[in-house]
Amino acid sequence: MKVVNQEQIEKWDLEDPLASKRLAFSLPDNIVYLDGNSLGAMPSGAKLRAKTVLDEQWGNDLITSWNKHHWIDLPLTVGNKIAPLIGAASGQVVCCDSTSINLFKVLSSAMALQKSRSVVLSLAGNFPTDLYMVEGLASVLGEDACHLKLVDESALENALNVDVAVLMLTQVDFRSGRLLNMQRLTQLAHEHGILVIWDLAHSAGALPIELDACEVDFAVGCGYKYLNGGPGAPAFLYVAQRHHNNVTQPLKGWMGHKHPFAFSAGYEQANDISQYLCGTPNVISMSILDAALDVFSDVSMYALREKSVALSELFITLVEGNSSLSELHLVSPRDAKLRGSQLAFRHEHAHAICQALIHYGVIADFRAPDILRFGFTPLYLRYQDMLKSTDILAKIIRQKIYQHPQFNLQQKVT
Amino acid sequence: MKVVNQEQIEKWDLEDPLASKRLAFSLPDNIVYLDGNSLGAMPSGAKLRAKTVLDEQWGNDLITSWNKHHWIDLPLTVGNKIAPLIGAASGQVVCCDSTSINLFKVLSSAMALQKSRSVVLSLAGNFPTDLYMVEGLASVLGEDACHLKLVDESALENALNVDVAVLMLTQVDFRSGRLLNMQRLTQLAHEHGILVIWDLAHSAGALPIELDACEVDFAVGCGYKYLNGGPGAPAFLYVAQRHHNNVTQPLKGWMGHKHPFAFSAGYEQANDISQYLCGTPNVISMSILDAALDVFSDVSMYALREKSVALSELFITLVEGNSSLSELHLVSPRDAKLRGSQLAFRHEHAHAICQALIHYGVIADFRAPDILRFGFTPLYLRYQDMLKSTDILAKIIRQKIYQHPQFNLQQKVT
Repeated sequence: MKVVNQEQIEKWDLEDPLASKRLAFSLPDNIVYLDGNSLGAMPSGAKLRAKTVLDEQWGNDLITSWNKHHWIDLPLTVGNKIAPLIGAASGQVVCCDSTSINLFKVLSSAMALQKSRSVVLSLAGNFPTDLYMVEGLASVLGEDACHLKLVDESALENALNVDVAVLMLTQVDFRSGRLLNMQRLTQLAHEHGILVIWDLAHSAGALPIELDACEVDFAVGCGYKYLNGGPGAPAFLYVAQRHHNNVTQPLKGWMGHKHPFAFSAGYEQANDISQYLCGTPNVISMSILDAALDVFSDVSMYALREKSVALSELFITLVEGNSSLSELHLVSPRDAKLRGSQLAFRHEHAHAICQALIHYGVIADFRAPDILRFGFTPLYLRYQDMLKSTDILAKIIRQKIYQHPQFNLQQKVT
Repeated sequence: MKVVNQEQIEKWDLEDPLASKRLAFSLPDNIVYLDGNSLGAMPSGAKLRAKTVLDEQWGNDLITSWNKHHWIDLPLTVGNKIAPLIGAASGQVVCCDSTSINLFKVLSSAMALQKSRSVVLSLAGNFPTDLYMVEGLASVLGEDACHLKLVDESALENALNVDVAVLMLTQVDFRSGRLLNMQRLTQLAHEHGILVIWDLAHSAGALPIELDACEVDFAVGCGYKYLNGGPGAPAFLYVAQRHHNNVTQPLKGWMGHKHPFAFSAGYEQANDISQYLCGTPNVISMSILDAALDVFSDVSMYALREKSVALSELFITLVEGNSSLSELHLVSPRDAKLRGSQLAFRHEHAHAICQALIHYGVIADFRAPDILRFGFTPLYLRYQDMLKSTDILAKIIRQKIYQHPQFNLQQKVT
């Protein structure tokens, strides 16, 4: 068991090359925020941008802002700003709609490219909305043309065969934080002629991703978690350049038209990534996300990952070193190379403990039925926050504070 | 030809029962804004709400705001606030996604209810994205199961027959402002067993709508035009209560699940209107729309319509009374009962005239190839604005100011 003391932890904070990034966020006082994997904290630049978009753009320049302030370009501007964070060359990422809807688009595209195959393979524990969207697509294509097959991770590689049209995986599991091997799984899938869709909801902005280098076909991701774009921020999608001339998708809104302002009666899809746009872009939210992404402009995703691992390793060390916390069972892989930027622990009273943590200023997350989730956002978390939060957690469990009725309320929301 | 003088116009403004509503908006000085049909002006309450959502909610209360500030309820809260504006009883309207995507959902529902029919009937001049979404749905259902038939308005009633599954119409035409008879067309369609979808993009918030009384089946609409929800605001959809237990739609995101936070692997659709939700709601934009709708809380849609008609009639009178404006050809119906809250005029140099109008502080709108559009939002427009804008328009045309090279730039955006 490693021993860490307060002095050591303070030293790490002093030497942290990302320490100054905390100043780019507007954080409440005396709160340790370990839920950036559900909703990222607010960058001060995002708040300023919201004011500009409202006062100067919408309020003053009104409709002329579509050109004057480049509103019409936002989906591609923001997409191209996300691209380097996920290892994508420019022109392959677009910001729009929600993760679920973007998944429907790329799933439709992938299935249309795989006419002779019908199986969408995924993991049983994948985030439910991803699985539901396959059900949704199957409901229009018909079960013969599209059906979902779920396996456990141990059975995944053996399930890759010529019946499978699409392998749809979430890179980091929302519950356990398990990080899948994107390169290996994409390559294995391709060897069987399978197209691959990665959901980056819990990885984009949290760790280095190499979509182009891994030859991924399609990806989707979320703007409001590690990208800090604000509650319900627009999502994004990636389609590899090599597919742009061969794909189609059914949500054929006017913004995906080759010439949206020709107002022609027939749909002619754009031949670049903007063919994945549908309705009018959500300017206010997309502008806020655009500004939030500026926090990443001088951040190496490798340096970010290094700190993310150091934070979570420290958290585990502190939990393991505290006998009051022996009731917590680590659900996440113990090997940091196999984890995203979060930790999950099982406890019978996880929900009540989570409520008590929030009460004492440590914002964590609960996932049914018995999972306590802690997300580590290296941009605004300090090593001292790991000490403070585990101390409070230990007190809540040791003194059984979670048994108080006030901590046994209804579930909260991601 | 009626004659109106400045004194008469000033008197109308003084006597206008909606005059004080202008104070609820944050409008730029010295601008006449005749483009609320593209992007509504900013209500001051919306701006304040944005500040609260950012500073107090996202910034301070972070993830806990989903419950504490009722973020999770926003789609239904906002839907129920829109409902009375469109003649819908509570529980039938939900705010989400974009108009295009919502149209895809209700089109899918309607086609699934009409298994033995395949035609979606619409008007040739309908807003293109509506037609594109039918193409998109046909691309997954197959042309045998779904195909679009377009007719001119004169042929519409005769085209209603037992082959038609769905009649999909926009209540107010985006170009001409032509207002269709919702009650008559819905009733005629029903007589042939046809389900009806109305797109309210150019009518919601502009005139009284009676969805329930007209027994409409489905409707969609836009949050950023006459509802003043901000650029790219979330849209809404309506599904009549009588269909709630029989419908399905393919965009089966977790927010449409009966128990989203059970995180179960199989989709079980909610049995109320929330079955039409998909991904995580866009909290910031939806909150802004929520606040914007408060402007309507004490407004009678009949009083609003009365002023809308009076404004547009005055505008026509002023155009017709000015010999410099004889080059403008009214494309909208001359009878106010057949128009929405906008006027369209044809002119060979419409685009350049529109640019010149903007330069001189009159924000109007151009629609290819040769249409000048003027939208009349009774909440913030005055009778004197009709005089000012037609005076400037007359000067631009009389002096051929539009011929200046600076007014011959690229097209603007709705």
